Amino acid sequence: MNNKVSFDEAVNELLPVARKEKIKTAWDRYEAQSPQCGFGLLGVCCRLCWLGPCRIDPFGEGATAGVCGADAHTIVARNLIRGIAGGTASHSDHGKHTLHTLIDLIEGKAPAYSIKDEQKLKNVAAKLNIETEGKDLMQIAKEVAAVTLEDYSRQDSSVGLTWAKQTLPAKRVEKLKALGAMPHNIDAAVSEIMARTHIGVDADPVNLLLGGIKCSVADYTGMVLATELSDILFGTPQPLLSSANIGVLKENAVNIAVNGHNPVLSELVCDIALEMKEEAAKAGAKEGVNIVGICCTGNEVMMRRGIPIATNFLSQEIPVFTGILDAMVVDTQCIMPALAKVTECYHTELITTMDTAKIPGATHIEFHAHSGIESARKIIKMAIEAYRHRDPKKVNLSSHKVAAFAGFSTEAIVGALSKLDAQDPLKPLLDNIVNGNIQGVCLLGGCNNTKVMHDNSFVTIAKELAKKNVLLLATGCASGALAKAGLMTPEATNEYAGDTLKAVLTAIGNAVGLQVPLPLVLHMGSCVDNSRAVAVATALANKIGVDLDALPVVISASECMSEKAMSIGTWCVSLGFPTHLGVVPQVLGSSIVTEVLTDKVKDITGGYFIVETDPKAAAEKLLEAIKQRRRGLGI
Amino acid sequence: MNNKVSFDEAVNELLPVARKEKIKTAWDRYEAQSPQCGFGLLGVCCRLCWLGPCRIDPFGEGATAGVCGADAHTIVARNLIRGIAGGTASHSDHGKHTLHTLIDLIEGKAPAYSIKDEQKLKNVAAKLNIETEGKDLMQIAKEVAAVTLEDYSRQDSSVGLTWAKQTLPAKRVEKLKALGAMPHNIDAAVSEIMARTHIGVDADPVNLLLGGIKCSVADYTGMVLATELSDILFGTPQPLLSSANIGVLKENAVNIAVNGHNPVLSELVCDIALEMKEEAAKAGAKEGVNIVGICCTGNEVMMRRGIPIATNFLSQEIPVFTGILDAMVVDTQCIMPALAKVTECYHTELITTMDTAKIPGATHIEFHAHSGIESARKIIKMAIEAYRHRDPKKVNLSSHKVAAFAGFSTEAIVGALSKLDAQDPLKPLLDNIVNGNIQGVCLLGGCNNTKVMHDNSFVTIAKELAKKNVLLLATGCASGALAKAGLMTPEATNEYAGDTLKAVLTAIGNAVGLQVPLPLVLHMGSCVDNSRAVAVATALANKIGVDLDALPVVISASECMSEKAMSIGTWCVSLGFPTHLGVVPQVLGSSIVTEVLTDKVKDITGGYFIVETDPKAAAEKLLEAIKQRRRGLGI
Repeated sequence: MNNKVSFDEAVNELLPVARKEKIKTAWDRYEAQSPQCGFGLLGVCCRLCWLGPCRIDPFGEGATAGVCGADAHTIVARNLIRGIAGGTASHSDHGKHTLHTLIDLIEGKAPAYSIKDEQKLKNVAAKLNIETEGKDLMQIAKEVAAVTLEDYSRQDSSVGLTWAKQTLPAKRVEKLKALGAMPHNIDAAVSEIMARTHIGVDADPVNLLLGGIKCSVADYTGMVLATELSDILFGTPQPLLSSANIGVLKENAVNIAVNGHNPVLSELVCDIALEMKEEAAKAGAKEGVNIVGICCTGNEVMMRRGIPIATNFLSQEIPVFTGILDAMVVDTQCIMPALAKVTECYHTELITTMDTAKIPGATHIEFHAHSGIESARKIIKMAIEAYRHRDPKKVNLSSHKVAAFAGFSTEAIVGALSKLDAQDPLKPLLDNIVNGNIQGVCLLGGCNNTKVMHDNSFVTIAKELAKKNVLLLATGCASGALAKAGLMTPEATNEYAGDTLKAVLTAIGNAVGLQVPLPLVLHMGSCVDNSRAVAVATALANKIGVDLDALPVVISASECMSEKAMSIGTWCVSLGFPTHLGVVPQVLGSSIVTEVLTDKVKDITGGYFIVETDPKAAAEKLLEAIKQRRRGLGI
Repeated sequence: MNNKVSFDEAVNELLPVARKEKIKTAWDRYEAQSPQCGFGLLGVCCRLCWLGPCRIDPFGEGATAGVCGADAHTIVARNLIRGIAGGTASHSDHGKHTLHTLIDLIEGKAPAYSIKDEQKLKNVAAKLNIETEGKDLMQIAKEVAAVTLEDYSRQDSSVGLTWAKQTLPAKRVEKLKALGAMPHNIDAAVSEIMARTHIGVDADPVNLLLGGIKCSVADYTGMVLATELSDILFGTPQPLLSSANIGVLKENAVNIAVNGHNPVLSELVCDIALEMKEEAAKAGAKEGVNIVGICCTGNEVMMRRGIPIATNFLSQEIPVFTGILDAMVVDTQCIMPALAKVTECYHTELITTMDTAKIPGATHIEFHAHSGIESARKIIKMAIEAYRHRDPKKVNLSSHKVAAFAGFSTEAIVGALSKLDAQDPLKPLLDNIVNGNIQGVCLLGGCNNTKVMHDNSFVTIAKELAKKNVLLLATGCASGALAKAGLMTPEATNEYAGDTLKAVLTAIGNAVGLQVPLPLVLHMGSCVDNSRAVAVATALANKIGVDLDALPVVISASECMSEKAMSIGTWCVSLGFPTHLGVVPQVLGSSIVTEVLTDKVKDITGGYFIVETDPKAAAEKLLEAIKQRRRGLGI
């Protein structure tokens, strides 16, 4: 370790600029918060009613229960599942936004949108058991929307979520039902958690955790439908070459960063940006309008359009310090309110767009599907105007920029494999797993967290596992980190992959006509796209007739941070995957909760959490989990 | 002040028993928690993601923002509205439970239930614009259920909640719509709050509070439908004489306390108890089975059946110390998990009944509408068995018991008034408000809180306001306190009411043939029954053609504690009422939030919070608020 805050040298290069200007960034604010409250870190602080705040003495010398009598186990379990509910609600919201855009389109109220991927619509309809024969596209879309709406509106608790039932292996669906962990309605699942964690309701830590498992299945459902409907509206990603890191900002262009999570706004901004090239040129920006991505909105537009990604979550303030970011337009989730203070010191316009996501100090331009074009135009006009006010004294260009392949949707992966076996595309992958050329699959996902060195663990774990011939997938801010680190390139495969993995990736690369191997890490999309990895795993499981918990597939969220990460991590475990967290979850104050999550849950879902903050040790543990699964399959 | 913990002498009498036995109660646990965390008390602690926990230094010397940049205003507002979401989810759950019992009944799956109040069903149908002419009861019930289900399932966000729109004055509905504060779906409202308070979403404190107002309207909706459907299933309360305090436990009976909130279970327990008298007698309990109530389940069965109430929330452990409580059967909400430890030291069986509300150490007897009779029988059998194991050495009888009238539903109040004016029942009330005989109306509601002397503020405020001729209504644990204090009697009216109020209450008492005045405080029911007070206010407002915020009606929650109290308090303000809190809400860390809640919100809803911990001063402020409203009306 050194005292750099980030593995990303662009961050290390630009942070001193902020310090010189006396602008605080996430790292400074983290330092100001340190040492953080030990009760909170252990999960034993309860603020669920005004008898409190209460806290349990972890050393057993002070209070052993809150005023109501809730002990550490109850408090820790309640806090955790409220986090899961927060994550589930966020994905519910994301999915709903996408669904209602589709509905507006069907009803002719969203002129800027269209069904970009007709085949995907038909595939989704088939998956949902909707007959497509002889129906026109809008009719199919209508029926897909109606089935999806039911997962938000169903009141019969004996009927499970359609999207969950139709996208997971039948054995897993049965297991979840048997556990009482198949929800009937996404928002009702959130509401149930909030009700059962109210003072004086559920006090049984194991029962509460089971509630968390159930809610996490609702979270998965919101995610899978968000991803699939986004593909219908904006196209299913296909492999493409893009680039990553702050150097993607262009000195001679109006630079607009799209930040947040939802492609509904950013897709339009990208569309309209192309039309407004002339206007930008008139303002002096010879290269027109340059859209770059941050966080998961960045991943969305990178996957579908090859828009370069400037940076990921933790470093979202950094692009501002180049002095050439003219506007940052944000939608929802993981947008630091600090951006308002940071952009205040620059010419950069911070623009919020959703009525449930405002930031004091930002300019709010309300965005709705029906008037999206107009809003997008306003946003770009504002950026062009800001461009005129750049302060040359504040310009700090960064040259950090690397190539990065993206667009590895499930369809893209299957498509590439079909070049090896058109009849049975999964066979080559399966054969290579069975023969050990590929030891297993690891999905690297999740956020960034100031508690660990920015981006570092993703890179370390990826390199360690690649060496041991583990196929790597990535989503969310892990993708951002791995893209910036240059690991989404054929060169990285040549440099870091174990011999047999390299051979497989090279064979596929050749088969698809690339003449180079596939990248070391396959970029699967934003964090909501974790569902794409489930689709691959489900296809494999169904092919060999096993449940997900039999597969040598593991998950790693080495910088987990948000409630969405809590709910995603939990559904990974609910679906049967060994799931690594590289930041200590705030549950250690309860031995029961800790034991259930890391061990006992194996008996009921097959999945479990691996908590390991050292990335090399984490890689070893993930590899051991893969080997154990291989032994279970007798391979 | 003295150093007694409670205004309730039964508590002061039995607490030493617990101390002698070295059993901890809520007061001991509160002491062990003191001093409580100052950051939590001010609302400036944020635990919404694993970058944290973060906290803002209220003195401005340390951290001014969390790692993400959220400042004190954002953090305080987010914490508060998550509390509102918790309360809303709880009432959503309560309402759903009642609704699904009705649906089970309609579908012939709940043999133990029936439509006890046919007229109420028809009235509710009429209120919901459902045609009843020529339809049989089950058909009407079906249509009422269908309309109610829509308030949980509706996905069109442009259509407001039916139950809210049909039970509030049209002007108020318009105002809420104009504010964007009319939700379309109760659970979606909860989910929206959870999503917008996720890290990096809504950071604007005022926007967040507007979100809280919207969610609170969903809370009101869950409550009003819970109350109204309960009346259909179990009967609309009518005035009756009951009794209150620990002395209602009988030495020679099998004593079972029903604790929690939902009448669906407790109604059956009461039914079956009557049948099992013989069995109890065989075990030696000459007086059979004696059901008593605690907290709001207690209020529910008191209102409809005259079942005596043993005690309220904060003292729910106390009845155990008599040594003659044989079982406590609990449903949901505000049930102290501590009861498991307390009952462990006695023969008392603690029985949980809901799958989302378990307590380690309790016996769980699953309760469902379709098999409710069987569960109720099991519960009573268990209590009879426990009776055999009473330890005479541990018996501490309490003689504290007072008479208490209950059952003052909206219908009961209008019914009594109709004896004065059969054509226009509201006219006598309105005339007396206009002529000043009644200065205004105060609803005393809410919980208990260890932060203030148990029950004391309710009694003080009630006496102060009564003296000034304010008509008093009570719900929830305020009812429990006022009943135990003997204020729900005609004698209290004679002793404490101002002359003109006394004259009015006496006139009504005479008109209904009581020969004594109505009680000083009218018991309107459990906390979910706060909606009954809204019904009275709405009837008055509609009659004179004003909105709710014009009425001399105020609310006081002088021991507010739970998230339900947060959401109820908020909808009281959202509907336009001056609303007193006698415990400092955990918002003082934000000047913006504090100012909005206590002042600026007046401009948008007409309601506002009055925070005053001194009960005499609170009474003065409530009276001033009433006078201000009277001046506004020119009376």
